[in-house]
Amino acid sequence: MKYYTPLALALALGLQACSSTQTSQSAASAASASAATSTAPAAKATDKQIEDLIAKMTVEEKVGQMTQLTIDVILKGNEVATVDTAKLRNVLVNYNVGSILNVRNRAYTIDEWHTVLNAIHDVTDKTRLKIPVIYGIDAIHGNNYLAGTTLYPHNIGMAATRNPELVNRLAQITALETRAAGLPWNFDPVLDVGRQPLWPRFEETFGEDVFVVKTMGAAAIRGYEQNGKGPDFTVASCMKHFLGYSYPSTGKDRTPSYIPEQMLREIFLPPFKAAVEAGASTVMINSGEINGVPVHGSKYYLTQILRNELGFEGVAVSDWEDVIRLHTRHKVAATPKEAVRMSVEAGLDMSMVPTDFSFYDHLVALVKEGTISEDRINLSVRRILTLKKKLGLFEQVRPKAALKNTIHKPEFDQVSLQSALESLTLLKNNNNVLPLKKTGKIVVAGPTANTLAALHGSWSYIWQGTDETQYPTKAKTVVQGLIAEIGKDRVISRSVADFANAANYNVAQLKRDAAQAQAIVLCLGEKAYAESPGVIDDLDLEENQLALVRAAKETGKPVIIVLLEGRPRVLSSVEPLADAVLMAYRPATFGAAAIADVLFGDYNPDGVLPFTYPRFSGDVLTYDHKGTEIIREDIPNAAGNRGFNPQWPFGHGLSYTTFAFSDLRVNKTTFSNNDNLQVTVKVRNTGSKAGKKAVELYSHDQFASITPAARRLRAFSKVSLQPGEEKEVSFTISAKDLAFVNEAGKWVTEPGAFDLMVGDQKTTVTLQ
Amino acid sequence: MKYYTPLALALALGLQACSSTQTSQSAASAASASAATSTAPAAKATDKQIEDLIAKMTVEEKVGQMTQLTIDVILKGNEVATVDTAKLRNVLVNYNVGSILNVRNRAYTIDEWHTVLNAIHDVTDKTRLKIPVIYGIDAIHGNNYLAGTTLYPHNIGMAATRNPELVNRLAQITALETRAAGLPWNFDPVLDVGRQPLWPRFEETFGEDVFVVKTMGAAAIRGYEQNGKGPDFTVASCMKHFLGYSYPSTGKDRTPSYIPEQMLREIFLPPFKAAVEAGASTVMINSGEINGVPVHGSKYYLTQILRNELGFEGVAVSDWEDVIRLHTRHKVAATPKEAVRMSVEAGLDMSMVPTDFSFYDHLVALVKEGTISEDRINLSVRRILTLKKKLGLFEQVRPKAALKNTIHKPEFDQVSLQSALESLTLLKNNNNVLPLKKTGKIVVAGPTANTLAALHGSWSYIWQGTDETQYPTKAKTVVQGLIAEIGKDRVISRSVADFANAANYNVAQLKRDAAQAQAIVLCLGEKAYAESPGVIDDLDLEENQLALVRAAKETGKPVIIVLLEGRPRVLSSVEPLADAVLMAYRPATFGAAAIADVLFGDYNPDGVLPFTYPRFSGDVLTYDHKGTEIIREDIPNAAGNRGFNPQWPFGHGLSYTTFAFSDLRVNKTTFSNNDNLQVTVKVRNTGSKAGKKAVELYSHDQFASITPAARRLRAFSKVSLQPGEEKEVSFTISAKDLAFVNEAGKWVTEPGAFDLMVGDQKTTVTLQ
Repeated sequence: MKYYTPLALALALGLQACSSTQTSQSAASAASASAATSTAPAAKATDKQIEDLIAKMTVEEKVGQMTQLTIDVILKGNEVATVDTAKLRNVLVNYNVGSILNVRNRAYTIDEWHTVLNAIHDVTDKTRLKIPVIYGIDAIHGNNYLAGTTLYPHNIGMAATRNPELVNRLAQITALETRAAGLPWNFDPVLDVGRQPLWPRFEETFGEDVFVVKTMGAAAIRGYEQNGKGPDFTVASCMKHFLGYSYPSTGKDRTPSYIPEQMLREIFLPPFKAAVEAGASTVMINSGEINGVPVHGSKYYLTQILRNELGFEGVAVSDWEDVIRLHTRHKVAATPKEAVRMSVEAGLDMSMVPTDFSFYDHLVALVKEGTISEDRINLSVRRILTLKKKLGLFEQVRPKAALKNTIHKPEFDQVSLQSALESLTLLKNNNNVLPLKKTGKIVVAGPTANTLAALHGSWSYIWQGTDETQYPTKAKTVVQGLIAEIGKDRVISRSVADFANAANYNVAQLKRDAAQAQAIVLCLGEKAYAESPGVIDDLDLEENQLALVRAAKETGKPVIIVLLEGRPRVLSSVEPLADAVLMAYRPATFGAAAIADVLFGDYNPDGVLPFTYPRFSGDVLTYDHKGTEIIREDIPNAAGNRGFNPQWPFGHGLSYTTFAFSDLRVNKTTFSNNDNLQVTVKVRNTGSKAGKKAVELYSHDQFASITPAARRLRAFSKVSLQPGEEKEVSFTISAKDLAFVNEAGKWVTEPGAFDLMVGDQKTTVTLQ
Repeated sequence: MKYYTPLALALALGLQACSSTQTSQSAASAASASAATSTAPAAKATDKQIEDLIAKMTVEEKVGQMTQLTIDVILKGNEVATVDTAKLRNVLVNYNVGSILNVRNRAYTIDEWHTVLNAIHDVTDKTRLKIPVIYGIDAIHGNNYLAGTTLYPHNIGMAATRNPELVNRLAQITALETRAAGLPWNFDPVLDVGRQPLWPRFEETFGEDVFVVKTMGAAAIRGYEQNGKGPDFTVASCMKHFLGYSYPSTGKDRTPSYIPEQMLREIFLPPFKAAVEAGASTVMINSGEINGVPVHGSKYYLTQILRNELGFEGVAVSDWEDVIRLHTRHKVAATPKEAVRMSVEAGLDMSMVPTDFSFYDHLVALVKEGTISEDRINLSVRRILTLKKKLGLFEQVRPKAALKNTIHKPEFDQVSLQSALESLTLLKNNNNVLPLKKTGKIVVAGPTANTLAALHGSWSYIWQGTDETQYPTKAKTVVQGLIAEIGKDRVISRSVADFANAANYNVAQLKRDAAQAQAIVLCLGEKAYAESPGVIDDLDLEENQLALVRAAKETGKPVIIVLLEGRPRVLSSVEPLADAVLMAYRPATFGAAAIADVLFGDYNPDGVLPFTYPRFSGDVLTYDHKGTEIIREDIPNAAGNRGFNPQWPFGHGLSYTTFAFSDLRVNKTTFSNNDNLQVTVKVRNTGSKAGKKAVELYSHDQFASITPAARRLRAFSKVSLQPGEEKEVSFTISAKDLAFVNEAGKWVTEPGAFDLMVGDQKTTVTLQ
């Protein structure tokens, strides 16, 4: 597979290529700038059309707008995509339902989508007020519920690219392919910060750093909603999952988080703040609970923080079946009806019920008996109708046949490949064992070598991503990708995707195979999973995969590990046996091609870790841990480490060339709250190959009123350098960008000294 | 070793024997009752002697009272226990130091203690005001710094006894042996709740349950301070470590805790509240930090909660060197002087400096320059002088020679043995493989079989407990204990305490040895450690120990695992290979005798787990987890568990007999806030051996304003039953005992239904 140069790619995509003097502003300021141009849906009574409509609506019609059901409720029998008109009429006419979501069993073709949606809108036309239904979908990495479409690396890999423009572009493509199917609402992006690597949705996050998450998240939202191409090419985005979903104490999905208020505001809230400022239209609520408080039932989270503090005016939708679970699972509501009351009073606008009319029936009763005021539901209905109007649904709710031709474009494949290439992260490369020679043979083994599912992960044509038959033919396994790269005769592989028996590779056979080969490529990692089916009890990679590494090492040939996994699985016991390790995350459709390009040197890798890769399952810390995580130097430590001892640090990623930083400078060494600091640094390609380098600016507060983090990422950029070439990179930051949340829960930047670091360069500035 | 019957033991110790109708009140109410009789040191200006003294004192003399130094500062060269009078004079006369602590290198003999203390008091007599020095020591499980003395099981084992009277008796003995040495202040008990099993001080805790910790903690405090025997037999206790020390996120000692306010108040604060009510004289502050706030620098924790809310009027002392660390480590104070100011203004009374005069110099300067008021330091000095007066130090500070004869009594050994016996917890006993026959041989192997250190753990004659030469001859290893039980000819052991190579037991030899034996006893677990040297990165038991289990299983003989460990080390991969598992914790001096008694049936085990023993290192939950930890039943789960899947649950412990519960009754099924509920249950010994049974009353709040815990322990008792005998156990609880901390941080008992459970019995009561 050929490598598309950044320039060619930029031309193909209409993007601006990287420039040597590019200035990367902080996401916060970038987000502020764009917020001015956004038109967030207003909940205020300012729109005559909407107010007139509300005035005409019955309580039942209003509650129907707040009700979202799954497509299963309107499908015939067990059929995948055939609507049962009688059921549909009951849902839309008798129950006035205003929103439908999901697919049944698998991705639909574009024609199936059009047929389903037209059937829905046909019935809407027969309702009293003809209010258009809004259909929502989880299109997480490309429109993964559109059959045959190209998918893109999961967010965890996109975070490794350190390239928000790519994230923005993916969102634009996804918006186009989603809207073309007739779907105006995408439940994306995930803004949960990935700080609990056991969590099975870790791969859906942009990693552990707040700044990366908020930068990438805002880029995605702008790509979905504000790509300048008009309603036929935009969708409503959905900030999810508000709030604290990604930090369950045991890592199990939808289980309790315990998050001190200070951490909640410093780590988990900022991506949502940036997303509101970027113009997100909707938000989905965390199914779990924070400190024993289920978010769906919390006025504090849903009104005080989300509305009053963040100023969000869009639609808040529950996650799957979560309202009733306030009664059945969280046990904070003594009856199902009380669960409905609690969630609506907390501030929920729409309940993803999704399979019955319980929410509808209880809410109608609550309003009619006066427990919930009509004003309260008018507020939610106004938000929902405003969203529908903003999306143009009152004018054009039906899918446009003409848009069928806009999907599945070859240039989208190029973006997917480029994303995969920029995500791949070379973690280890002893003695420059990589790149391999195209003239020699290789042995390929391991459970992820010959499966599409492990390359794609969750939300890939089916929810779990596990059905190999659903993948389009352009998707290739790693073995297929390597064969495409160097030819069938040079790839020796007997690999099958048997995760339970990876080590049952016949070791004698492995030795015979290896005898002919220059190296063994071991594809390890995880099978595909989504949500709870991906629960694990330990970060350790399964023993049978570790055994395979030991067997490979015995051959005497170089061992190259390729990791296809959604979260960092601990492999420290065998890591010393590997000559090279390439982290591939979930690179999707062109992941195998990208891996082949990197292994054989067609692409010089530039991805960097968006999380801290742990060395031990009981020793998980983020890069921005506090200095006090370091074990006291006066006390000996049997474990032989000093308290922060990751396998690979956040931001780590090797290249086939080398880079050197120099001349880190700031335009002023003392500054005030109103100043902008210009931070510049020179970076030079000191090796012999062209390559790109993520340039990251970190800060460290020398003293603060609460113990400061070891370092915090404040800005990043990515530069492309020819051998010998040097560029200057400039960042603009202000005192606000160095702020933290103090004991009182307030954002402050306290006077004093801050270290600024880029690579091995460091300088100090003082806030007066 | 003979088993001492409860009656004989009770007579020997002057304890009241268990009665069949004994009523176990909640610790809270028991604590309230005793609080009325306690005389906590008062910080109010009510004592003329103390006020007169304060009026005479210079700033330097006052600051000296607030300064605590380690004994190293006054010892000659590198000598262990020889005071350097010139150094001492400098400390006491020039720097007016009011408190000294610790030993150098090892436990001192009673004579060494008397010599050291007399030397100190000799110099005190030459100071201007002759204010007695208060000497403090860590006597954690017996006076572990008194050479040759009997030690007792660590708290984790004492919690397994479910016998607060034993804990109280140990504290009385420790008080006696501490005071006899001339030491009036003991830095004990640990009130930290053990909910992070990676933490190396887990063994010092009373486990994961709040009620057990507060009950045992209060029993210890009353044993130290209010045993009715007068100042010669009492010591000041020290609640430690205030607050949130035991919950570091990675388990590493003295690293950050992140604890939401609700959890802090519900879980970590109650033992301190109960301890204040039980009359604790002093408190030691957590070296770490909560949510980024170092406790030593926090007015919120040290004044608002500790003083204003808990009403504590005693002395607050820092832990080792922690004041200066606000500057050097936590980075919340920009200078060392600012660190001193911050801690004193926060509410600290005494700084365990401990090796220099920095605290003294800075605090003198801060008062003289007016930054800190003299009123502020008068408050601390008043507390310290009140403590000294309460302890009788103004009348008699010197050790009494006559008290030398009160220590090392044989009856103390009996209490130690009884404690070890009641702590041992039989976790598994397939096919009644235990007890073993005394007429057959056994093979004993494993790294903890032939070491005293693993039996004793931390704080055993030396800090780390690792010096085998320091142990008295009455302490026996497991091998020695088994030989004492069944004779040398019947015990085959080649075991050495080689933790790194446990599996290097020659397997062929093991098979030959096993061929002659009825069973293999594998002594596994952990070497001794204290604090940071005990840091681990993973809960898994070391692979070489697991390999030893596999090798033992291959012999075909029954495998009996004895665990000597301070925390639950995961062994799920080999647990199915074991026929029996006996958890021994750190049973101390007579631990081996107790293990032998249990293995051979001289004692019928009755200990129950004070923590949840995890099955996987990444799946740590407590028994009182929320119901929402259970993975949603509608979502399949690849890991095959439902979200709470421990190896052994909290409260688990087998017996050689069987018990049955029946007739759980409550005197009223609806109740009000002012009612007491009488809960009774019958328990019958349905087996053929006499035995004791821990009877535990749990509650479950069916619905609450925050998600309720699966269950909470509300009361416990322990009954002794002959075969066929039945007794009725009665508990008195009130609405207050069913309270929880709500979202606003307030203790509430909300109206509604509560399930009450004892064993397999369940009933429901409703609060109106």
